[in-house]
Amino acid sequence: MGGLLAKPNTWETEAEKCRKIRADSIPEQWLLTPGQLPPPERLNVLNVPAESGIMSLKELQITETDATTLVQRMGDGDLTAEEVTIAFLKRATIGNQLLNNVTEFMAEDALARAKQLDAYFAEHGKLVGPLHGVPISTKEHIWHKGRIACGAYVSQVDKVATEDSHLVQLAKNAGAVFHLRTNEPQTLMTGNTNNNIWGETLNGSHLQLSCGGSSGGEGASIGFKSAVIGLGTDIGGSIRIPAAFNGVYGFRPSALRLPYNGIELPGAGQESIKCVIGPFANSIDDIDLFMKVALDQEPWDTEVSLLPLPWKSVESSKDITVGIMWTDGIVRPHPPMMRALKGAKESLEAAGVRVIDWEPYKSLEMLEIIVTLFFPDGGKTITDLVAASGEPMNEDAAAFLQHAKLLTVAENWAYNDRRDKLRAEFHALMKSRGVDVILCPPYVGCAARKNKTDYGTYTMLWNLLDQPALVFPAGITVDPALDSVDTDYKPTNEMDQVQYSKYVPEVFEGAPICLQVVGKHLCDEETVAAARLIEQIIKG
Amino acid sequence: MGGLLAKPNTWETEAEKCRKIRADSIPEQWLLTPGQLPPPERLNVLNVPAESGIMSLKELQITETDATTLVQRMGDGDLTAEEVTIAFLKRATIGNQLLNNVTEFMAEDALARAKQLDAYFAEHGKLVGPLHGVPISTKEHIWHKGRIACGAYVSQVDKVATEDSHLVQLAKNAGAVFHLRTNEPQTLMTGNTNNNIWGETLNGSHLQLSCGGSSGGEGASIGFKSAVIGLGTDIGGSIRIPAAFNGVYGFRPSALRLPYNGIELPGAGQESIKCVIGPFANSIDDIDLFMKVALDQEPWDTEVSLLPLPWKSVESSKDITVGIMWTDGIVRPHPPMMRALKGAKESLEAAGVRVIDWEPYKSLEMLEIIVTLFFPDGGKTITDLVAASGEPMNEDAAAFLQHAKLLTVAENWAYNDRRDKLRAEFHALMKSRGVDVILCPPYVGCAARKNKTDYGTYTMLWNLLDQPALVFPAGITVDPALDSVDTDYKPTNEMDQVQYSKYVPEVFEGAPICLQVVGKHLCDEETVAAARLIEQIIKG
Repeated sequence: MGGLLAKPNTWETEAEKCRKIRADSIPEQWLLTPGQLPPPERLNVLNVPAESGIMSLKELQITETDATTLVQRMGDGDLTAEEVTIAFLKRATIGNQLLNNVTEFMAEDALARAKQLDAYFAEHGKLVGPLHGVPISTKEHIWHKGRIACGAYVSQVDKVATEDSHLVQLAKNAGAVFHLRTNEPQTLMTGNTNNNIWGETLNGSHLQLSCGGSSGGEGASIGFKSAVIGLGTDIGGSIRIPAAFNGVYGFRPSALRLPYNGIELPGAGQESIKCVIGPFANSIDDIDLFMKVALDQEPWDTEVSLLPLPWKSVESSKDITVGIMWTDGIVRPHPPMMRALKGAKESLEAAGVRVIDWEPYKSLEMLEIIVTLFFPDGGKTITDLVAASGEPMNEDAAAFLQHAKLLTVAENWAYNDRRDKLRAEFHALMKSRGVDVILCPPYVGCAARKNKTDYGTYTMLWNLLDQPALVFPAGITVDPALDSVDTDYKPTNEMDQVQYSKYVPEVFEGAPICLQVVGKHLCDEETVAAARLIEQIIKG
Repeated sequence: MGGLLAKPNTWETEAEKCRKIRADSIPEQWLLTPGQLPPPERLNVLNVPAESGIMSLKELQITETDATTLVQRMGDGDLTAEEVTIAFLKRATIGNQLLNNVTEFMAEDALARAKQLDAYFAEHGKLVGPLHGVPISTKEHIWHKGRIACGAYVSQVDKVATEDSHLVQLAKNAGAVFHLRTNEPQTLMTGNTNNNIWGETLNGSHLQLSCGGSSGGEGASIGFKSAVIGLGTDIGGSIRIPAAFNGVYGFRPSALRLPYNGIELPGAGQESIKCVIGPFANSIDDIDLFMKVALDQEPWDTEVSLLPLPWKSVESSKDITVGIMWTDGIVRPHPPMMRALKGAKESLEAAGVRVIDWEPYKSLEMLEIIVTLFFPDGGKTITDLVAASGEPMNEDAAAFLQHAKLLTVAENWAYNDRRDKLRAEFHALMKSRGVDVILCPPYVGCAARKNKTDYGTYTMLWNLLDQPALVFPAGITVDPALDSVDTDYKPTNEMDQVQYSKYVPEVFEGAPICLQVVGKHLCDEETVAAARLIEQIIKG
């Protein structure tokens, strides 16, 4: 149609397609005016919605409520799904203006669905389901029927999802409202969130720190309370790192529990390290609720690769043993993280919970294996997808891909076998030490600086071992007065040196600190129950 | 020690190590004298034990009793574990003399264990467990502590198992007695049983037919009633083909249900097509019993890769729909198999069970995928292990390895992805057709001629799809008067032509005919329950 002289598409014009969709989707009536924007030196912008005057007090309260309570209130007739949806859309609009975390608003669909839910409630006097009216955001590569799911590759901007992803379907069955899709990094294999289509997402709790990745848009979304629940994916920490950096809850279930159909990720058929989908939230109750809602629908009868394991009801009990892993044995966590662990230990012991020190086990070997198993194709699948459009490769993605090592199939088997042996050894170790869950940092520090997440062992270990892991806010923030640099510490290796030197108390001041609870393989319910107990005790 | 002129070991002298172990282990007092040997023209030798006079009537009766009943009788004090063990050892000695199916007798250990069990029963008045005194035979590559497990590779004859395989441990916990280890083919990837160490195993029901493979020694063992239960492994039909050829019960559970630790199989870490361990028996009750005994011990808490799925109690119910798969759509089954299916259909309908015709689905594509996924390393792991000792490669193994195609890791992923899509499609098809189980042949005919098993689609489909499959005797044998060649049939392709031309009624006369019941993925209990119902109805 462009005639003989039409220029061929460049990657920039291709990327523009997605940017236009986003631009057209933004509810402009709720944008901050230039005068309402926070000053550039302000680091924590989470309170801007309250200050802006755009949101009513009721709307602010709604967005500070978790799903469990919101659903209750809608069931009592105190709130409508429509007002809940509007409240979160407003907050999300502001959030995206400040953090650039949304790739597409779905306001029209969300509001139409909310009205349907309200009509249903008015007619039948009961809720559609246990997620009735709960606004949920999803990482961009999770399919929504009829919408582009490109996985942040410019070469894939014409890929339109033919259906909703399976988990989205289940949440919709339960009454959920999907109003936002969120940003992710190029290659989806970094702990930051930046790409050539939508740019960089920021961390609302501290604008100079990374929002984490790869589900960084979700971390920002839940941190800003732009959504009640978020859905991200995790193959090496991609849920837990952004949860930790944004000070929210993020759960990586064991593989093959939550449905995975309908996610745009290159390398389908790779099964050495399984990518999983999982929830972000602002409470453990909501994590629990979401898992239950999904598994109560027996998704294994549709997605045959899933395990037919219902979500069991497990009560939190003090009769457990918590192993505290102070370090992965490679790099020592930063002082704020050590303070959080020490505080946790004291509180747990005071509450009568058995606590032991957990010696790290073969972390370096595990790190080598998982990084190798991320890219046994030599990274070609990913680099080809970047190269296909001509877009440049991000620096952090390129740095990680330098570890890619082309394996033969037989070499891949040998790595799988080493992985399996480590899984067995680690499980046996937990049993022999009598440890039910491990409490450890989710990252070497509270967060990385912007675009500088470059050490993932604290999350990757559990992907390699396929153990469920839940990140939760420890309820404290970095305080230079309490978290001074330990000048006596002598790093034991180069990685340790590099990571330790990154800690400058003043830089991280005020950043939230999260911890990670790790359970045994497929003991997802017990892990969530233990995390609930630990959180309650830590926070008094 | 051999001095300067000592000859280096040849593969023959290496193989001799294992042959000597076997020779030394044979209980010679129970061997048939030359005069007791059947004449060479006799094809079915299953009744030789009864005719030989070596076994008492009580011993014969014991060996014709299934585990469920034997354990009951030992619990009633009617039988001792020692007399049960002796009876089976006697029968096994004769069996091996005729069929060459045993690689090692463990008579001393078995009798010592039986005496312990009897002492326990005398002292406590109760059984050690639900397999108390049940003699079980195991395929050679299943580990027994302190014994060689070479997987039929001459290059591995110095490999001594450091522990019992996990499943053997569980069975021992339940009171089982292990008295025999049995033969398997070179490479373990053929449907015959012949190797350069122990030679060829024969089929006791028909000496001119293959005993099947790769668990051919087990098929022969259970067919001859040398053991009550047998343990084999199955990656493409290696339990079900020998079960079918020897007219016994064989079950391939879904992968990751029965413990797999402690099996000598090259290519550890290969997970595209998982090899599984499973039971042979002479009744469905015994299959059910064995599965229950194993899973009641929660093996997933030791072997962390297993699924934490207890063995459910499922009652057989007529309220099911059976889909009869008359053909795989590639090669048409031989007339005796068609007669068995027709008879089954009539009986099931007469009994009020819903029966529909099951159209085969993409069998050719599945065949191509599974054969490719058997050897994505180009077959190198296997061929190297054969070559390492200098032993020659068997013809049938070499023929199968010709299909080996070296894949890159990314190509392997693509095949996995196709496999997963087919699993999903097939499952959806069973649901949409309302079919609970599929009834089909386990092989194109009742058996192959000696060393000529060369078509495995009827079993391999279910390995590709990871669906549970149980083979059981249909209660009839080949009868040339009833099973004449259908001279009107026009083969539809070359494979069909080759397989159809193999059917000569007189050659197969008297051979047992088995059928296969296939359930949905992980619906193992429902599959066993349906097979029990179908068998009861078919046999009246």
